[in-house]
Amino acid sequence: VRTVKLAVIPGDGIGPEVVAEALKALDAATIGSEVTFEQTPFSLGAARYLATGDVLTDDDLSAIKQHDAILLGAVGGVPGDARLAGANIERGLLLKLRFELDHYVNLRPTTLHPGVTSPLADPGDVDFVVVREGTEGPYVGNGGAIRVGTPAEVANEVSVNTAYGVERVVRYAFAAASARPRKRLTLVHKTNVLVFAGSLWKRTVDAVAAEYPEVAVDYLHVDAATIFLVTDPARFDVIVTDNLFGDILTDLAGAISGGIGLAASGNINPDGRFPSMFEPVHGSAPDIAGKGIADPTAAILSVALLLRHLGRADAAAKVERAVADDLADRGDARRSTAAVGDAIVARIGALD
Amino acid sequence: VRTVKLAVIPGDGIGPEVVAEALKALDAATIGSEVTFEQTPFSLGAARYLATGDVLTDDDLSAIKQHDAILLGAVGGVPGDARLAGANIERGLLLKLRFELDHYVNLRPTTLHPGVTSPLADPGDVDFVVVREGTEGPYVGNGGAIRVGTPAEVANEVSVNTAYGVERVVRYAFAAASARPRKRLTLVHKTNVLVFAGSLWKRTVDAVAAEYPEVAVDYLHVDAATIFLVTDPARFDVIVTDNLFGDILTDLAGAISGGIGLAASGNINPDGRFPSMFEPVHGSAPDIAGKGIADPTAAILSVALLLRHLGRADAAAKVERAVADDLADRGDARRSTAAVGDAIVARIGALD
Ligand SMILES: CC(C)[C@H](C(=O)O)[C@@H](O)C(=O)O
Ligand SMILES: CC(C)[C@H](C(=O)O)[C@@H](O)C(=O)O
Repeated sequence: VRTVKLAVIPGDGIGPEVVAEALKALDAATIGSEVTFEQTPFSLGAARYLATGDVLTDDDLSAIKQHDAILLGAVGGVPGDARLAGANIERGLLLKLRFELDHYVNLRPTTLHPGVTSPLADPGDVDFVVVREGTEGPYVGNGGAIRVGTPAEVANEVSVNTAYGVERVVRYAFAAASARPRKRLTLVHKTNVLVFAGSLWKRTVDAVAAEYPEVAVDYLHVDAATIFLVTDPARFDVIVTDNLFGDILTDLAGAISGGIGLAASGNINPDGRFPSMFEPVHGSAPDIAGKGIADPTAAILSVALLLRHLGRADAAAKVERAVADDLADRGDARRSTAAVGDAIVARIGALD
Repeated sequence: VRTVKLAVIPGDGIGPEVVAEALKALDAATIGSEVTFEQTPFSLGAARYLATGDVLTDDDLSAIKQHDAILLGAVGGVPGDARLAGANIERGLLLKLRFELDHYVNLRPTTLHPGVTSPLADPGDVDFVVVREGTEGPYVGNGGAIRVGTPAEVANEVSVNTAYGVERVVRYAFAAASARPRKRLTLVHKTNVLVFAGSLWKRTVDAVAAEYPEVAVDYLHVDAATIFLVTDPARFDVIVTDNLFGDILTDLAGAISGGIGLAASGNINPDGRFPSMFEPVHGSAPDIAGKGIADPTAAILSVALLLRHLGRADAAAKVERAVADDLADRGDARRSTAAVGDAIVARIGALD
């Protein structure tokens, strides 16, 4: 029996509610198997900041690093809460974890499941994955401002891109494309404007492509990519892109495939030097928190990504099968968070 | 009779084809009025570069500056054309004009006209305008790279934002919102990540909002904005945003409202120090060039923006009315570029 040390960060708002269901699904999918999960809860997020003034301490970070993987719900307080004005929970917690734990692959699969309604009239067969770079680009925090608050203010943001950082995520994306039936990879960037970063991304993709002759490669500017995401999303197989473009494209991808209430993600350190972190793409949704109506599906699908990352493809497949079956039968019925979780758990159990 | 000096840049690919129809519409809408257009054609674009090695000379630029307004078709050669590898027509021509002529407002209206099919199942009443900043952000060309082509390469892109630049475009957007029936303004940015630029944009909008108490203001992160553009585009009235986010959002906006074949834009210098430039959002589409099948509607609607900018609201309204009527009756019929242009011109004539 192998023991996996799992750090659990329920977070704020609906985070704890959806994580509770995700953990039930994790149990159900691994019960009786040769893997057990030893869970450590971490109380992090806006609530913790308001209580203690800390967003993420060095001690928190070292404790989290002692784990094999992380499951995160959602973090962030009520928008406009004046007590949070001095803190940036997203940057101080979520992005800090992604950067400190070298989560250079931000994996965001998009599937339009049977039974799920898309806002698109004719979406087609949507099944792609976005490989979003997670540790570079305009997310590095290398901006600055002078003369703040005066008419002469200048505020800069620097997007940093390195051969080291681009090559490793591009390699991951090619390996992913090569392992998929359609074997297609689309680089999304804005090479005609961001010429330095764009050139690095383009040259890197061209170079790695030579090692994957079986993968068909194309390129789209980010603006054109958003067009295809609404006119022909079925054309995509694997998209590789930078941190900011990936952020934008994956929210749009979530929207066309039934909403970010269904979108799971993995912040992955493929080297295994640090624990990878799995989280729904949605936020803490304070407006519906505590009502028991949040959809736990994205959190549960994040558990599937976690299981696959840990080499438990069979258990991952069970979770995904159970979710797909639940979605197919869901219709317009409004169920509570727990009811959705229970239904999926029951289906996982029935798959044994 | 006032004479307007109009610089005409047909450009590459379908550019000349759609510009020809746009000029017919311009004639039809102003014939017999107190304004006449004195047109100077400028041969600029990929074809000119291939012929002469020049993208835009100082002489071209000073000649263009002698005009009251510019109508541009589309520029850009065949993707992958090796002879163009050394040139960046988009940056050297299109962006150079926007920057040199201080086109700080990039105005991109989005209307889903009756009769036009949206890829959205239930788009609702889509009618908004994106006020995209045109002279700052990551478009400034302040990037650079070191150790290019080595494993130690670093490629940076700098987004520059100034109080001067942000305030003037925000003011324009508030004035536009205040003049519209719904009086709503949405700032789109990514303030939780791009904290320096985001803070400048946010503070500027808050400050100017105090002068426009009648305008309802809200804020969306760019990723969330893409979601609303497919789930509830009717919620938008005026969007104000930076150069890059505006680029992305307006292609998406074009896609949900019938395609960028219908999307017009104005690159505006509201100060009137330099000529403003009107162009369809679409590119040169070399794949369909010369076949006479390009849709000239976006170019014709750009003429309407041009007329309104020149204070000819009546003529602008005629063009828009004629286009709307043509779209309403268009159905699935495939007509040639000239047939669409002629139909719209006939309708303009009939409106007299
Ligand atoms: C909360 C925010 C910092 C984050 C991001 O921009 O990456 C979120 O939008 C996401 O996509 O996970
Ligand atoms: C061609 C390109 C430089 C341009 C831009 O990015 O602004 C285009 O996409 C546009 O939106 O007008």
